[in-house]
Amino acid sequence: MMYSLEAGGKRLRPILVLSAAEAVERAENARKIAMPVACAVEMIHTYSLIHDDLPAMDDDDFRRGKPTNHKVFGEAMAILAGDGLLTHAFYSVTRSAALGAPPEVALAIVSDLARLAGVPGMVGGQVADIHGVQGVTSLEELEYIHLRKTSDLLVFSVLAGARIGGATQPQLEALQRFARKLGLAFQIQDDILDLVGDEAKLGKPVQSDVEERKVTYPFLIGMEESEALVVRLTQEAKQALDEANLAQPDTLRAIADYLMSRDH
Amino acid sequence: MMYSLEAGGKRLRPILVLSAAEAVERAENARKIAMPVACAVEMIHTYSLIHDDLPAMDDDDFRRGKPTNHKVFGEAMAILAGDGLLTHAFYSVTRSAALGAPPEVALAIVSDLARLAGVPGMVGGQVADIHGVQGVTSLEELEYIHLRKTSDLLVFSVLAGARIGGATQPQLEALQRFARKLGLAFQIQDDILDLVGDEAKLGKPVQSDVEERKVTYPFLIGMEESEALVVRLTQEAKQALDEANLAQPDTLRAIADYLMSRDH
Repeated sequence: MMYSLEAGGKRLRPILVLSAAEAVERAENARKIAMPVACAVEMIHTYSLIHDDLPAMDDDDFRRGKPTNHKVFGEAMAILAGDGLLTHAFYSVTRSAALGAPPEVALAIVSDLARLAGVPGMVGGQVADIHGVQGVTSLEELEYIHLRKTSDLLVFSVLAGARIGGATQPQLEALQRFARKLGLAFQIQDDILDLVGDEAKLGKPVQSDVEERKVTYPFLIGMEESEALVVRLTQEAKQALDEANLAQPDTLRAIADYLMSRDH
Repeated sequence: MMYSLEAGGKRLRPILVLSAAEAVERAENARKIAMPVACAVEMIHTYSLIHDDLPAMDDDDFRRGKPTNHKVFGEAMAILAGDGLLTHAFYSVTRSAALGAPPEVALAIVSDLARLAGVPGMVGGQVADIHGVQGVTSLEELEYIHLRKTSDLLVFSVLAGARIGGATQPQLEALQRFARKLGLAFQIQDDILDLVGDEAKLGKPVQSDVEERKVTYPFLIGMEESEALVVRLTQEAKQALDEANLAQPDTLRAIADYLMSRDH
């Protein structure tokens, strides 16, 4: 568990939790209370990478510049490390209540996490991704996969932080639109980087999607249109962010701009 | 997910949740409120069976009289079915709040489940079980494995039901002792049945522990002493049950007696 947690990565999801908590600025100690939830979402993300990399799934040997978990510890321990991280994430969410989150807020976060990381969300996206094959999957189906596999955990991160920050219902709804668009843009950028990125910066081999016959945005609509779509979705995300009327939207806005221009 | 959930089994864990909720008899609608938690613990149990049966783990072909999940749907889908059930279990626990459980009770149940099904509990027991080998593992280590791999989820079931039923702290502590003893007796009986049970009744091949070189109680202390230990642990469990001073302890007591004499 620690090997994969400490392998690094952008820590995008925990940063979104903390940034959303600070952006709302209505509840006290929001950043401190949000910390165990930020850790929880990184545990969920890390478990999903460990299981996705297994031989029975994507069969990847490298992740974040290091050998994948099962390459080091074997398949049985990799499966159990994933199960352990997934389960412990929910424990971590309950710790936010011990730090001062109202129990009904902590419980809403548990419910969001179970839904958005589960079968209606991330797990369902991974199932569809495994079934998705080049030449068969449509653009509509690919959007379904990306929204579940990537956007849903970003939506969770922003909603959880905002809940702890004391967001109103209209703010939560606008932030959900923000994170959905952001996640879609993020995943299309991932598709692009898998084709033209720098292996050293990415920490994994490029063109793996082509090798694994994964269906991607560049495969379906071409590189130029994929890049234009990332720009457009990022603009739409920032528009939704404006509609959330946050006290401090600057960090979330900067994250959206950074993701659009990242090279890893 | 449904294939494995509907494969049957004794439903011992959900029955313990409902029976514990009814045994305390302090909160209203306890049985109805406990139902989503009863479902949750069966989802957790079922996910653990699906993952344990995988080729990288115990590599079992039959479970509850049917081909194991990965034999029917392949390894990738079996891993994801397990991940989906594990995640959805936490969603199901949050539903108890929608039915009337106070949010702090539902949150305590989430915390218990994450701990007792996680690395300090069931997942940790499975890790130790995989490392345990005949001739190397001590009786002390075997007790550690059984307490985590089996007792902890029974402890969760009884505690969760009792929490919903409105149990006091001393009642929760006595019930925890009850379920630990009961779980240990249950697992030793499982070890015995793997050696001398009826394949048709068990729904899986006997002597699999011998084949897989699993360390068991009969292997370490012999059949006769194992059987005596099941009787003694069951008596100690019922003594703890008496100390809980429940309004209606009869069903829990009958479950303890049934488990001791079961043949599958």
